[in-house]
Amino acid sequence: MTAYDETCIFCKIANGEFDTDFIAESDNVVAFNDINPVAPVHVLIIPKIHITSVHELGDEHQRIWNELLVTTQAVADKLGVTDSGYRLVTNAGANAGQEVPHLHIHLLGGKKLGSLG
Amino acid sequence: MTAYDETCIFCKIANGEFDTDFIAESDNVVAFNDINPVAPVHVLIIPKIHITSVHELGDEHQRIWNELLVTTQAVADKLGVTDSGYRLVTNAGANAGQEVPHLHIHLLGGKKLGSLG
Repeated sequence: MTAYDETCIFCKIANGEFDTDFIAESDNVVAFNDINPVAPVHVLIIPKIHITSVHELGDEHQRIWNELLVTTQAVADKLGVTDSGYRLVTNAGANAGQEVPHLHIHLLGGKKLGSLG
Repeated sequence: MTAYDETCIFCKIANGEFDTDFIAESDNVVAFNDINPVAPVHVLIIPKIHITSVHELGDEHQRIWNELLVTTQAVADKLGVTDSGYRLVTNAGANAGQEVPHLHIHLLGGKKLGSLG
């Protein structure tokens, strides 16, 4: 797996440098708890390689895009929020409030969620 | 294209029954403005077939999942929010506040967005 950015905290997490407890892992994707959760369930699902945002996913990333989906569904099931409901959010760029420039999908659940934006 | 639910408003929209102005359309996906926007740009991207939520996407829907991504990126470019930033949200189930039980991705942009949930 290439495309490791040594200045990127999510690259370091995916690479196991912080001994992060992964809720799920597949060939190209890992999932872990957000350190600043805004809901009882708040997991980040990210590609292992450095891709800046969802806008940078191209045809060559179709497998990663699919693994992000499958892993997200698995996390929802594992954490028991599938029946009660969950929200997926990904921010791309400044207006969205993207804080780490490495694609991540937020999975939120465990409470009645508020507005979208 | 099968899987039309005659009780579903998004199936009717995708089928052209309301003469909706599509911002983008591909083989399996359409995009149109949300009728209750919460941001200057608020577009819904949906599969044409009736799929209840993101949790119901299976292996057989990989092409649709990819078209949802490509169409979403195209809408962001077309509406000029790629550089300023945008947020994608999809709600699955009651806790997330999913209002229409037909998978839809919200694309939000054109302002500084608030919290995730």
